[in-house]
Order: sequence, then structure tokens, then C-alpha cells
Amino acid sequence: MIAPDTLAAFRAVAGPRGLIEDQDLIAPWLEDWRGKFHGEAAAILTPRSTQEVAAMVRCAAEHRVPLVPQGGNSSMVGGATPPADGSALILSLRAMNSIRRMDPEANLAVCEAGVILSHLHEAAQAVGRRFPLSLGAKGSATVGGLVSTNAGGTQVLRHGTMRALVEGIEAVLPDGSIHDGIAALKKDNRGYDLKQLLIGAEGTLGIVTAASLRLVPAIADRAVAWVGVNDPAQALALLRHMEQQLGPVVEGFEVIAADTLGFILSVIPGTRQPIDTLTPWHALIEVDLDAATDGPGAQQRMEAALASAFEKGLVIDAAIAASEAQAEAFWKLRESASEAERAQGPALQFDISVPIATMPRFMVDVAAACEARFPGTTASSFGHLGDGNVHFHVRAPRAGGTEGGKAWLASHGEDATRFVNDQVVAMNGSISAEHGIGQMKLAEFARLTEPAQIGAVRAIKRALDPLGLFNPGKLVPLATPV
Amino acid sequence: MIAPDTLAAFRAVAGPRGLIEDQDLIAPWLEDWRGKFHGEAAAILTPRSTQEVAAMVRCAAEHRVPLVPQGGNSSMVGGATPPADGSALILSLRAMNSIRRMDPEANLAVCEAGVILSHLHEAAQAVGRRFPLSLGAKGSATVGGLVSTNAGGTQVLRHGTMRALVEGIEAVLPDGSIHDGIAALKKDNRGYDLKQLLIGAEGTLGIVTAASLRLVPAIADRAVAWVGVNDPAQALALLRHMEQQLGPVVEGFEVIAADTLGFILSVIPGTRQPIDTLTPWHALIEVDLDAATDGPGAQQRMEAALASAFEKGLVIDAAIAASEAQAEAFWKLRESASEAERAQGPALQFDISVPIATMPRFMVDVAAACEARFPGTTASSFGHLGDGNVHFHVRAPRAGGTEGGKAWLASHGEDATRFVNDQVVAMNGSISAEHGIGQMKLAEFARLTEPAQIGAVRAIKRALDPLGLFNPGKLVPLATPV
Repeated sequence: MIAPDTLAAFRAVAGPRGLIEDQDLIAPWLEDWRGKFHGEAAAILTPRSTQEVAAMVRCAAEHRVPLVPQGGNSSMVGGATPPADGSALILSLRAMNSIRRMDPEANLAVCEAGVILSHLHEAAQAVGRRFPLSLGAKGSATVGGLVSTNAGGTQVLRHGTMRALVEGIEAVLPDGSIHDGIAALKKDNRGYDLKQLLIGAEGTLGIVTAASLRLVPAIADRAVAWVGVNDPAQALALLRHMEQQLGPVVEGFEVIAADTLGFILSVIPGTRQPIDTLTPWHALIEVDLDAATDGPGAQQRMEAALASAFEKGLVIDAAIAASEAQAEAFWKLRESASEAERAQGPALQFDISVPIATMPRFMVDVAAACEARFPGTTASSFGHLGDGNVHFHVRAPRAGGTEGGKAWLASHGEDATRFVNDQVVAMNGSISAEHGIGQMKLAEFARLTEPAQIGAVRAIKRALDPLGLFNPGKLVPLATPV
Repeated sequence: MIAPDTLAAFRAVAGPRGLIEDQDLIAPWLEDWRGKFHGEAAAILTPRSTQEVAAMVRCAAEHRVPLVPQGGNSSMVGGATPPADGSALILSLRAMNSIRRMDPEANLAVCEAGVILSHLHEAAQAVGRRFPLSLGAKGSATVGGLVSTNAGGTQVLRHGTMRALVEGIEAVLPDGSIHDGIAALKKDNRGYDLKQLLIGAEGTLGIVTAASLRLVPAIADRAVAWVGVNDPAQALALLRHMEQQLGPVVEGFEVIAADTLGFILSVIPGTRQPIDTLTPWHALIEVDLDAATDGPGAQQRMEAALASAFEKGLVIDAAIAASEAQAEAFWKLRESASEAERAQGPALQFDISVPIATMPRFMVDVAAACEARFPGTTASSFGHLGDGNVHFHVRAPRAGGTEGGKAWLASHGEDATRFVNDQVVAMNGSISAEHGIGQMKLAEFARLTEPAQIGAVRAIKRALDPLGLFNPGKLVPLATPV
């Protein structure tokens, strides 16, 4: 708990608008959106400027109060939930929500940390540009959180993760100093790159207060296809073929198994089978052209590339969306995969990546190995094949219903998690492709990471945050308290 | 100096092939290629494997011997030259020069640190790909050095610096542990990104032993144009126009002033005026298409975009190379700029960047301000406008010839350096766009960098290299000895 004197000090620094102490207003921000992690906090700090953040951080350092930075609170790994003992305050960046500058000429948007992703999408569209990163939580996820977690999404194949889109950064460091690296410089080799270190650091090294983000031309013409294939290996061969034929205009390449599609069709209202042939696996492909692209349209390119893929035996059946509505319907299938999977009952969910060439083997062999090792379970995967990143689910045995499934997870969940993660590591993969470490993956991160890297992570944390006040209990597996 | 016992210990670890002690063989590696920095070293370690590097690093830690990693020794800032007191050994990575894997399907090359850039170019070309980074020193610069300095070059506009091309990294850390991050994962959010920290760290945090590098399709069709313009502002408007019209196929956009072109034509044999009209400024533009690009050819695209630029008043005169030989001749002009400038006598050379929109103002106003402040000097700039990066030269007054110029540099060089760097910082730019800090820019880096960043740089260095043995005296401005 935080002493009354200490709270009074924060009240003095934050002013009446900068500190929320009403527990009814605080309550929604104490738990992650999946309800897996719950914490306590006496107050939420709501700075309105970088200077205010710096003043609050200095106050926190003086009184040794940990701070948990929070944006849209949409972490998948408990990365924004305060500790359960009530020792920390939440520092919400949501009130810092202005777009400081929108420069279509330079393809640049300078955003404060609290800008919500969908607002940025709209603002970019209004000036004929787009911000090419999107994800399910776009209505609540904020720029600060997206930067701090190096967020991914469905457009990484062409445009990369946040790391590729952040051109400059402004942050408050644990000693209360302000790092002003907001100027967008394409080339800058002055010392260690603090920007790169803060991207993906989950708020444990600095609080990102603003970022300069790269925009790209708006989409002028798109084509979306649904393709039936035999297996993930064929899907990968198809991806290589499409890239060879079409180059970087291939913006999305998602795969999904027939059983997952079946779940979607059975539980999501208004969905329908996109192709007539029943195939074991499916790929969703998007081709996007901007106004500067010469030559054939997106539809025509997609048709030509799929026709030659068909001749090479890489496609069983395919449908190209004939309208924008149909394109949306194809994407809705993909975007409903998580929800439909959840409706199948209790399951373990993994967000993993392996080198792309290894992906087909992972999707097939590890699913089989997992089902053999844990009888009654069913494993399936779907996701971003072009990024080597899939969401891999292991469903608890159906016998016993939901309660039985929960009991299975309680008794075997940890074992199964280790089993899957061991396979990922054996294939030189990552146990966290998109979601980060947060608190959820801390133990597995510590167990499976080489000593050289864990040692470096700890040393960097101690060096930059010697009091251990920035987002404690997240990302850094501590051997000894900092 | 290093004690005989200590040298004997290294001899035992390195074996007869792994340690060069013949001073005739050592001498060429004690000085940087421009002859500005000279050091001493009793021996050069030449490991042939990552394990050997690790063993040598452990020996160095045990005996407290600093190591200076070296590749092609082509640093522009004294980054690979050993200290003058002979306290360090050189660790040469040149014998680790194999390409471990060349995977055109995955667009990936896994290279050891000692692979020379031009060898990588050839190896990629042999499999129908290319490695899209090139620079003047390509015949000697190595992968390890390119990674450790986050090298740039002439293709950054489209393909980015090394940071954008490194997909995985293997390195030996100061405690002798091996960081194996060589697997190319497009998405990996496990803790702080060591790869990003090692890129550009100039060997002060780890010794890069191998890297997985991204390849791109070979160029199937290119067009190169020489364009006369009024001033840098018009050149920037032309760049924006070309990008708008042609998209990312614009791979190079270089600018050069009429006086620099004049120097080139007067001192470089076999060069000739590329366009007939005399214009104050020039732009060199390259458009590259790969085999997957549909639609008009490179020449046709360049013509159409320049024609509409002409109509908009963005071009005074232009010539598109009619043959590969002419394209090479255009590029030779640009690539001879440094040499031609050098022939004009003693000068200060700056490698700076500012936000791209600010570049025209920098090129014109700062040159004028510099000439006004230091009477008799002439300032000029050329380089990568599309990256916001120019090479800015201040030539000493011509009166007094070469000796007078040298004397002027000795008495006013430091003042003039501070003057130019102050302008760069005032425009939110970087005093080192491409070349890094090394030892040459250490004092100015310390003087001009915000305390937050310098503090972080020092803290990270102390955390990862507590004995201060990796490339001492480079990049990190030390307040107190580590």
C-alpha cells in the first residue's frame, strides 16, 4: 500500500485533473481485458504533457513508488496490469492523445502516446495516406502501447512491425529526464540506439510519450482471394510463388485449417463457405496497389498469379472477391478465428514464431506430437504464414465439458505449455512473436532463454532503472531484486 | 604494453594460426585508411570460429586485456584503430569469411563477420538475388563492421541501412558468452532486442561473429537520369514528385552542386558534362525494377515522371542514360565527388543528417553562414537528399596553398567544427548520419548530446562491459573510467 503522505505528494505534483482516486473509476483498469490478471492501485496518474510525465516520474523516484504505464490496457500477457499488492500507481497516457503533426508530404505522423490506433487510421486517411499496421484491438490500443510492445498485426509481411514504422521517439526515463528523439532521421549513428531499446521494452526502461510514425500511400486498388490448399507446405510454396510473381504488393498471406474454418462457420452468424471444394487448408491472400502503381490492376494481377499457381499444382480451388463486401466477408472469416476457437471450450493459446521455412513442419508435426502426448486434446493453428508467426491452440479434452476442460488445464496446462514451447525453441523459434513477455510469459522466458541474453536483459534493466520502478514484474525475470 | 606472460596465455588459447606477432604483418592494421589515427598492438588475434572468439574473449577478460575488433579497417572515424599505448590487442574477424548459407528461396544469406561486402554481392548475384547495400569501401568492408556501424550507402532511400537488412545476429559478449540470435525471425518479442543494441554499437558491447542478412530480387531493368535544377528546395520537390509518381522503385536520389561537379570534371579523367545546360544544382536519380514488376519499363517510367516534373517546373534540363555505360558514367560522377573535393585542398568533412524537409535550408543557409563566419572558406555539400543525409565540406581558405590550409585547419578547425555541428543540432539533426562516433567524434558527441542519452549510453556500456575491454575509447564518452 502507498502511504497517505506519498499520495499527497503525487496530488501536489499532478493537480486535481492529474490524479484519479475514485475507486469506481479505477476498477476497470485493474484487470486485463481477458480477466486473467488482477491488480490493485490506489490511484491513476493522468498526465497531459511530457513535462507532467517527467514531474510524476521524479516524484515516484523520490518516494520509491513503482509506476505501471498504461494505454488501452489491451495487453495479451498482463503487461499493463498493476501488481496485486497495491504498491504501484497506474500512469495512464490516455489523456495525451493529440496528433502533434500530420505531414503527408513527408509521410509522417507525430503522435502522442495516448492516440488510439483507429483514430490514427482515420487521420491518415483524411490526408490521403494510411498507417499500415492494424490489429483486433485497434479501437482501444494506443500508440504508446503499440511502440512499447513492438506490435505486429496483419500487414507485417509488407510493412513490418512497429519497429519498422517508428522513425522517432520521445520518452521519459526512470530518472525523470526526457529523451527527445522525436525528430525523424533516416540515418543517425550517434551511439547506442535508445529508440530501438525502448521499442518492445514494455515500459520497463522508459515511458514513451510520443512517436514519429511512418505513413504510406493510401490503397487505391485491392484484391482479396480465398484459396484452398492441401497443407501448410503447399501454402508456403504458394506464398513464394505469389511473391515471385507479384513482388511486394502481396500485403497479407494468412492460413487457416479446415477445422478452424468449420468452427467459424458454425458459430459466427452470417458467415459462409468461401469456396465450394472442401480442402484441408486455406489461404487468404491480399494484394494492394497504391495510386503510383503502373500496369495491371490488383484483380488482374491476382488472377494471373493464381492461374500460374494452379498450373504448377499449388492451388486446389480459389475464389477472388468480386466486390468490396465479399473481400470484407473473406477477412471476417479470418478475424473471427480466435472467437470461434474460444467457443470450442478451454484451450491453451500460443503466439509463436519459427523461421518461415520451418513453419509448415511446425504446424503439422507439433500439432500431431501434442495430441499424441496429451490424449484427448486437439491442436490447431492459424495466422500469419508469411511472417513465420502462427497462433497455436491446444484444446483441452472435450470429455467433461467446460468444467472438465478447466480442470484439465489446471492439472496439465503447465506441462503442455512447456511441451509446446520446447518444440518452438528446438526449431529456433520465439515463444512470443507478437504479444511480448508481460507477466504471463515471464517464467517460460526465463526457462528457455540462453544465459547470455537473460544476463544482458537484467543488466540493462538494472543500469537504466536501478530502483526498479518502471512496470515492475514485467519482461525482466529477476534473479535478485534490482 | 602487454606482459609477456599474458601474451603467452593468448598464444596458448589461439594456437599458432590464431595469433600474428610479426610486426610487419601487424603494421598495416595499426592505422586507419585516411592516416588520421595511429595505434599500437603487440599482436593480432585471428579466430576462425565463434568458439575461438569466445575463448579469446574469456582470456582477455581473465587478463584484463582490451580487444579492438577489426574487419576491413575502413572506418571513417577511427573506430577500428587500437589505442596508442599498446594496451590492447586487435581481434581480426577477417579469417571468419564463409557464407554459411545462401537461401534465395527465403531471400536470406547467413554470413560470418569477415565476409567482404563485394563477395556477398557476387554470391547473391550468382543465385539471382542481390544484397541491396553498397558503399565505396565494398572491396574491404566486412559484414561484421557493416553491422557494427549500421552502415548506409546509396540505396538507403529504398532499402534502409544495415539495421533494416539484418534479420539475425550471432555475437560474443564481454563475459565470453555467445548470443545465438542468428535465426531469422520476422516477429520476435522476447525481451529487450539485443540484436538492435549490437547493430551500430561499434564493437563496444559485443563482437558480431555472424549475421543473417536479407536479400532482395535482382535488378531486371534500371534507368538512371541526370537532372539540372535550381536549388536543393527544387531537388526536394522533384524527389517528392518522383516518389508520388513512381512509388518505391525510386532507389537512388543524390544531389550535387555545380561547383562540386566542376571539380569532378576538372580532376577526374574521362568524365564529361552530363547535360548541356549549366544549372546551379544537379540530381542523380535511379529507378530499378525487378522481374516481378508489371507494366512499363524503367526507362519509360523515368521519362513519364520527368516529363510531368518538367511541366510542373521542377526540372531545368534532364538526360536519361541511353546505355548501361552511360548510366555507369553518371554514377561515376557522383562517386568521384569525395576524391574531387579532396583535390581542392585541406577541408573539414562532415557526415550529417537533418529531417528531410529541413535539408534544403541546411545546404544553402548553413553553407552561407559558415562562409560568412570564417572568411575565405568555401562550403559545399552533396549526397543522399532522400535520406536527409549530406556530406558537408568546409574548405580552408585557398590563400597560402596546402600548407596554409593545413595551418588554418590547425587553428580554426575545432571552432568551425563546433560551428557546423551547432547548426546541425539546432535543426534537430545528427552529427553522425552514417559513419558513427568512433574516436573522432567522441568529444562533439559528448558536448552535443542530451544528458538523458549520454547517461543511458554510459550505463549500458558499464552494464554489459563492466571491465571496459571491448573497443575502449570508442563511442562511449566516459565521465569516469568504467
